[in-house]
This record gives sequence, C-alpha cells and structure tokens, in this order.
Amino acid sequence: MKRAIVLLSGGLDSATTLWIAKKHYKPLCLIFDYGQRHKKEVNHAKKIAAEAKCVYKVMKIGLPGKTDSLTNLSKPLPVNRLTKNMGKSIPATYVPARNIIFLSFAVSYAETVNAEAVFIGANAVDFSGYPDCTPGFFRAFNRAIEKGTKSGVNSKSIIIKTPIINKTKAEIIRIGRKLKVPYELTWSCYRGGVKPCGKCDSCLLRAEGFKKAGMKDPAASRSQRTERG
Amino acid sequence: MKRAIVLLSGGLDSATTLWIAKKHYKPLCLIFDYGQRHKKEVNHAKKIAAEAKCVYKVMKIGLPGKTDSLTNLSKPLPVNRLTKNMGKSIPATYVPARNIIFLSFAVSYAETVNAEAVFIGANAVDFSGYPDCTPGFFRAFNRAIEKGTKSGVNSKSIIIKTPIINKTKAEIIRIGRKLKVPYELTWSCYRGGVKPCGKCDSCLLRAEGFKKAGMKDPAASRSQRTERG
Repeated sequence: MKRAIVLLSGGLDSATTLWIAKKHYKPLCLIFDYGQRHKKEVNHAKKIAAEAKCVYKVMKIGLPGKTDSLTNLSKPLPVNRLTKNMGKSIPATYVPARNIIFLSFAVSYAETVNAEAVFIGANAVDFSGYPDCTPGFFRAFNRAIEKGTKSGVNSKSIIIKTPIINKTKAEIIRIGRKLKVPYELTWSCYRGGVKPCGKCDSCLLRAEGFKKAGMKDPAASRSQRTERG
Repeated sequence: MKRAIVLLSGGLDSATTLWIAKKHYKPLCLIFDYGQRHKKEVNHAKKIAAEAKCVYKVMKIGLPGKTDSLTNLSKPLPVNRLTKNMGKSIPATYVPARNIIFLSFAVSYAETVNAEAVFIGANAVDFSGYPDCTPGFFRAFNRAIEKGTKSGVNSKSIIIKTPIINKTKAEIIRIGRKLKVPYELTWSCYRGGVKPCGKCDSCLLRAEGFKKAGMKDPAASRSQRTERG
C-alpha cells in the first residue's frame, strides 16, 4: 500500500484527515511538540494514532522566536470571539510559519520512507484566519517541493493533500462520524486544563461545528465524566 | 538599519553571503546543528558570526529520517568526483528537504524580529546538484511564504535572498576577498577531521575555486600550521 505522512495535532480536523488518508494510504503520523501551551494535545495525538493502528513519531522542536499567544504564556489568548469574524484577520495565536516548518519536516520524512503524500488537516472555512491554512499557500508550497526536492525533480513529487480545506466544521464532523473517527479522543482547546475552556477560538469553532452537525461532542461528555470521577 | 536573518553553515559560501548582507542589513545569524557528521562546522559558523560582530542563534534539530551520507555515518561519502560532473545528478549527500527546513525556521525567526529578508549562500553553479539550491526552488519558496505568512499577506513578505547563486566558486572567493571575509575561519569539508580530507565534493569545489581565483586557501595553511603545532 502507498505510504503517506499525516500531520497529527490531537484535534478533530487532523484526526478526521487521518481516517480519510487511511482509506487509500498506509499512514505514518508525525506529531510536533513545538513548545505549545500544553502537552495535552501531543498526548491526545498519540492516542489517536494508536487507535488508528498507525505508527507515529513525535518531533520535539524549538521555534526561534516566541511572539504569539500559543508559545508565549505571557501573551493572552483571545477569548469569546464571534466565529463568523474569525477568518477575517490574523489573531494573536498565529505562530509564525508553523505549518511551513511542520510541512518541511513532513516532506523530509516522506522522502526518507518513500511516502507519496503528506496529509494535513488544514481548513480555510471555519478557522482562525491563519495564512498557512489557505489553498493558495498549499498550491505554492507544493510547487516549492516540486522544484526543491529530489523526488520533485525526478517527477515523483510528494504532494501535500488537504482533504478538508474547503469543508465547514459541521461537514468535517459528519464525514468523521461516517468514518468512525474517535472524537472522544480529540482535544481542540488551546489551553491544557482538565476540561476545554469553551472560550478560545478552537473551543468555539468546535462547539459550533458539533451543534450544526446535530451531534453531541463525545469529548465534552467524557471530560464531564472524568470530572465527576 | 533593516534586519535580515543569515543562514550560516561554517563554509565559505555562507560566510561570503554574510559579508554581502552586512552591507545593507543588520544580520542575525542562524546556525543549524541538525545531526550532520561533525560539530566542527557549527563551531566555525559561530566563530564567523563573532568575527562579523553579529548575534547568532544555534538551533538544534533532529531530522525525521537519516538516509543520506551527511547524517548517516554508515553511508559512505562520495570521493574524488570530477567537479564538472557534480551538478549533473543528486549525490548521496543530499539531505531531504534540508534547505526547506532551514528556510522555514529562518522565515519564522524573521517574522518574530521584523526582519525583511533571509540570506542563504546557495549556489547553483559550482555545487553538488542539490535541488534546494536552484533558482527555481527559491522563486517557488518565496511565493509560498508570500501566501503563507502574516507578513506575506500584509504585503510585507520576507524575501529569501540568494546573492551568490549564479556565481562560480572563484567569483565568490574574489567577492569575498574584496569584502575581507575571514576565509581562514571557514570549514567546507564534509568530514570533521583535523584538516580537510581534500576528496569530498565540498573540498574539491573549494580547492578548485581558490585555484581559479589565483589565491591560496588561508584555511589550508592554517590547518598545516595547527598540525605543525
């Protein structure tokens, strides 16, 4: 079976992307510990990879500067924003060149294991306005790896695949439900509390997505169970 | 003065690039400890940055796979190749997506310190045929950061600059001589011996460059002095 690298963050978008990738590829998951606010999402990503019966690699990397509110704890996280406004500007949670860095490592990994594709759960509909989640960026990046890698110049370029980029959160959740994605194992909240904060962009987009999909968030009920003991 | 990130490897191309960048920018040097065969080049890069009176940051990163002969010691280094044939194919020393990874970190760093450019001493004339050293790759990568970064979408995109990409090694050395680049501090050899091996691609390209520039390699005479004690 053809191989693909799948970037896994612990959230529901990348988990859904993994199950989509599984239909046609043997996935190798790549998880980044990049100095984000908490390690909880890394642990959730590992559980998701294990549940999918996929091998995974956790890459610990430091970023050269910390000016954003995901890697710099002294910067406040935006809260209670209206989801309809989120895609219109770039918020304080934008981590400079994050996806460019993640994809670079993924492409490097892909070349060493002869993987044909790199899957990323980027979304440009119900999202926080990050430029490295847009179709235009991925088109340009695909061109760069076509020109700048051995596989690319040998006409076997690794392709970055973004299967959910144009879906709404509700559509992603409906796709995931059909594929039996274990959403109870996913973690979306930017904070690493006992249960999701419910106020950050990521929590708000998730809550709205489940509501519009007409489905209860299984992770929310699991958190409550955990809290009750 | 405008800021720029300069990628520094310890070799003569990146040292020359640093002195070129210094003419118009305040450089911040970025050095990578990525699991290459030896740490000697990292130490040389630090000395070069210090000699240029520039701040530097050493980033230690692991690469996800090691299939090349620069990061995998069990893979033999190509030796005694004819320099005129080197650019015609991709050798075993090709490290998958190396420059893509380095540039991604450099762009991230640039965004956090408001640097306008990233300088890289890539060369596509007297080189080993690496695809991530070619003008086509840099054009495509510039487009990717224009589309995928905050600075890019705000029309202040960071630009990857490759001032020596179309120069021969002899031309680079002549430029560097005029700029008083301390070539005695540079290290090009892929091995980390007491003195350069004289057989790897990097040694051969360097020797030919100095010969064609009609100049004695000051690092070679320094190695001999060191050897004599």
